[in-house]
Amino acid sequence: MLEDKNLDLTPISALGEFGLIKRLIENFEIQNSSTESKIGDDCAIINPDGKKVVISTDFLTEGVHFNLGYVPLKHLGYKAVVVNLSDIVAMNATPTQILVSIAVSNRFPVEALDEIYSGIALACKRYKVDLVGGDTTSSNAGLVISITAIGIENEENIVKRNGAKANDLLVVTGDLGGAYLGLQILEREHAVYLANPNMQPEMEGYDYILERQLKPEARTDIKKTLIELGITPTSMIDISDGLASEILHLSDQSKVGFRIYEEKIPMDSLTISTAEEFNLNPVVCALNGGEDYELLMTIAPEDYEKIKNHPDFSIIGHVVDISQGNNLVLRGSNELSQITAQGWDAFLNK
Amino acid sequence: MLEDKNLDLTPISALGEFGLIKRLIENFEIQNSSTESKIGDDCAIINPDGKKVVISTDFLTEGVHFNLGYVPLKHLGYKAVVVNLSDIVAMNATPTQILVSIAVSNRFPVEALDEIYSGIALACKRYKVDLVGGDTTSSNAGLVISITAIGIENEENIVKRNGAKANDLLVVTGDLGGAYLGLQILEREHAVYLANPNMQPEMEGYDYILERQLKPEARTDIKKTLIELGITPTSMIDISDGLASEILHLSDQSKVGFRIYEEKIPMDSLTISTAEEFNLNPVVCALNGGEDYELLMTIAPEDYEKIKNHPDFSIIGHVVDISQGNNLVLRGSNELSQITAQGWDAFLNK
Repeated sequence: MLEDKNLDLTPISALGEFGLIKRLIENFEIQNSSTESKIGDDCAIINPDGKKVVISTDFLTEGVHFNLGYVPLKHLGYKAVVVNLSDIVAMNATPTQILVSIAVSNRFPVEALDEIYSGIALACKRYKVDLVGGDTTSSNAGLVISITAIGIENEENIVKRNGAKANDLLVVTGDLGGAYLGLQILEREHAVYLANPNMQPEMEGYDYILERQLKPEARTDIKKTLIELGITPTSMIDISDGLASEILHLSDQSKVGFRIYEEKIPMDSLTISTAEEFNLNPVVCALNGGEDYELLMTIAPEDYEKIKNHPDFSIIGHVVDISQGNNLVLRGSNELSQITAQGWDAFLNK
Repeated sequence: MLEDKNLDLTPISALGEFGLIKRLIENFEIQNSSTESKIGDDCAIINPDGKKVVISTDFLTEGVHFNLGYVPLKHLGYKAVVVNLSDIVAMNATPTQILVSIAVSNRFPVEALDEIYSGIALACKRYKVDLVGGDTTSSNAGLVISITAIGIENEENIVKRNGAKANDLLVVTGDLGGAYLGLQILEREHAVYLANPNMQPEMEGYDYILERQLKPEARTDIKKTLIELGITPTSMIDISDGLASEILHLSDQSKVGFRIYEEKIPMDSLTISTAEEFNLNPVVCALNGGEDYELLMTIAPEDYEKIKNHPDFSIIGHVVDISQGNNLVLRGSNELSQITAQGWDAFLNK
């Protein structure tokens, strides 16, 4: 569980709640002028300076969202922040602050929390967000992390899920399915390890998809790129539960249908070859795998020329009338396959 | 666990995450003009309209913060909101929005979540706050609730922990120790029940302290009263961990000491008689019990006349130089007892 196996371990009770908090936050520096308070009061104080405030919160629970058998604690801390920042980015807003709540059982020493917080600190530095509050408490079973992310943005820049219109183009950033296949590799090698702890895990050659799973990034860069291209998306969402699930969310909120093309879905060659290794259809991994944290957006049809050759974006389909539903056009045919929600659902995928 | 024992129970997996969320939030109505979004996007959008935003978050974990053996789920939902609003009130701000994240294991049916959310809805209505987001997921162990509360306030009204000055008066609202003794009653009767399920619990006559424990209220009324009295506190905190712990927080943040008088600490007669029934010193219950959610504040000495006879406030001491430390003057003597942090600490009180 710990990166350095030779650390002297300290029980959390030796520090107490307030001593623990002091230790965990001492290396965090404020980076935003909108952050008006240091940790230590009843609340964090934020100065939006005339802008709107966007807020999102996410739970990560041990055994459901992560398995400490193969997820390093530092990566867990980093990823917990990133998945929340991704929600802010999906509103086309700039993430500025986070609050981090962690509940741990007695089996975690202080040093385990140190590692989680070192990952959180790394993400804060990388994304220039400030840790402004949270709660640290004990749980009777396992580790639970809850992060609230805050962003600030001018009203006219905020992009919601409900603005897609018929004939808009459906655009996705980066490539899809990699995080899901990275998870398959981790689970396979962990099972091998459990069966025989002397076996070395075979991770070589899977770097890209392992990183997609263990250390995803939020696409904070896309906002700037869109400004440079002169594009304001009509709707946007981040891909946390899988492309299919996110398309259905945009459909639901915008009251439109979507038609997407199988051959247009961007996938890395390692994602495709690993899917084949597991006898999985790579497109199904992209549609239902989730955790890619790429951005899915609709743009006006007249923006086509601005984006068509840009390496960060793939046009994968377009918006149709709601009566036409949500369909995937299969490769090399005109056959339609209805898009259904098989994305990750914490209550079903257990 | 459920209020109505005859309900047909639905497994959460029958609804799935998004179906569940839809069901849980359908009865919530928006009450604040600063709430710009309904649930259903990546983030909530808040319009602070030129004011500052204050934010706080708290975890409640089963077996640590609550015992479902004797805490009704509806009360749990209500209390989870109130304890967070109390943090907003402690900044002298007006609570406006909450985000609610809940992780539950499979042993909870949908109807259990319905009851928790009915308590949350009741608190939202009572305090005029809007539910604007959250996360609902599964956990491998028990129930975990994380609530983020948001408030909005003009900068000049916000009261922090760090403004207390020598000679300021230390003032507390309401009375203390009741919530802790209510918990003692609940635990005693629960132990009796576990030993013999046919025994009827003896709760009669303890109504006030049981309500202090099970259904505490946030002192949103105090802000208005202070305005009417023409008083702006120099520092403020809410009493969640016990009077002693909160005094030490004010001391730490304001760099001052406190002298408080045992005989001035406000306690209800039922609190005192119940403490005696348990062979506990009532003052110790007030100092270290916690969960009263009253407000502890310092005010300028010249405000003494304005507040001295007001039924909502008790003057319990005053601010001294930091070199004098934090001390309790014992009843009927000039003897000093040093105030130490023995308040509730999730990592120690297990």
